[in-house]
Amino acid sequence: MNAITNLVNRYLDAFNETDGGRRAALIDKRFTDDCGYTDPMIAAKGKQAIDGFIGAVQKQFPGAVFTLSGSVDAHHDIARFTWHAGPKAGPPLAIGFDVIVLDGERIRQVHGFLDQAPG
Amino acid sequence: MNAITNLVNRYLDAFNETDGGRRAALIDKRFTDDCGYTDPMIAAKGKQAIDGFIGAVQKQFPGAVFTLSGSVDAHHDIARFTWHAGPKAGPPLAIGFDVIVLDGERIRQVHGFLDQAPG
Repeated sequence: MNAITNLVNRYLDAFNETDGGRRAALIDKRFTDDCGYTDPMIAAKGKQAIDGFIGAVQKQFPGAVFTLSGSVDAHHDIARFTWHAGPKAGPPLAIGFDVIVLDGERIRQVHGFLDQAPG
Repeated sequence: MNAITNLVNRYLDAFNETDGGRRAALIDKRFTDDCGYTDPMIAAKGKQAIDGFIGAVQKQFPGAVFTLSGSVDAHHDIARFTWHAGPKAGPPLAIGFDVIVLDGERIRQVHGFLDQAPG
């Protein structure tokens, strides 16, 4: 697995980590201090806001697992990929698509879109 | 046609405008001063660099026409869309996918990817 795919998987780990302290540590390690996250629901600035958003998502969709779907397409400081969220077995509840902007090995910005909104 | 679709079409106009003066004017009007453009071939910063890149693309693929394919999916300050480039008739030579970041009615950043590279 190459470095960028590994980073994307560690990013998705944050959505799957329901222990608050461990989730905050994951975000602290994988995002820059000036990070941002925008998807159709929210535009969040900073690690704390992103952590709060992920916590809210976990409360709204308890037990949902976020996984990378397909491969990561990366060049220069950007990468695109599709993710699935839903129960461990069965079709996904939601399908999303992100472009992430990197600063070295950290994420500076997530530009998120939904291909399938949760019903 | 809504404002964001209109903006995307004006952006693609710059790729189709082979008159240097008119192209520079289009770019000046549609991009911010701190704009950037990144695709698999290049990471360009500023209006002049983007103008130079588009000029080089036009020389490499003379007569190619850039058109929006499908709809524009936009929320907050970002939008995603697919474009085709090729002869006016027949299948496209290249298919690309961009996420653009907006500052008001201007483009601050283009994050570009290729779904089909020119042969």
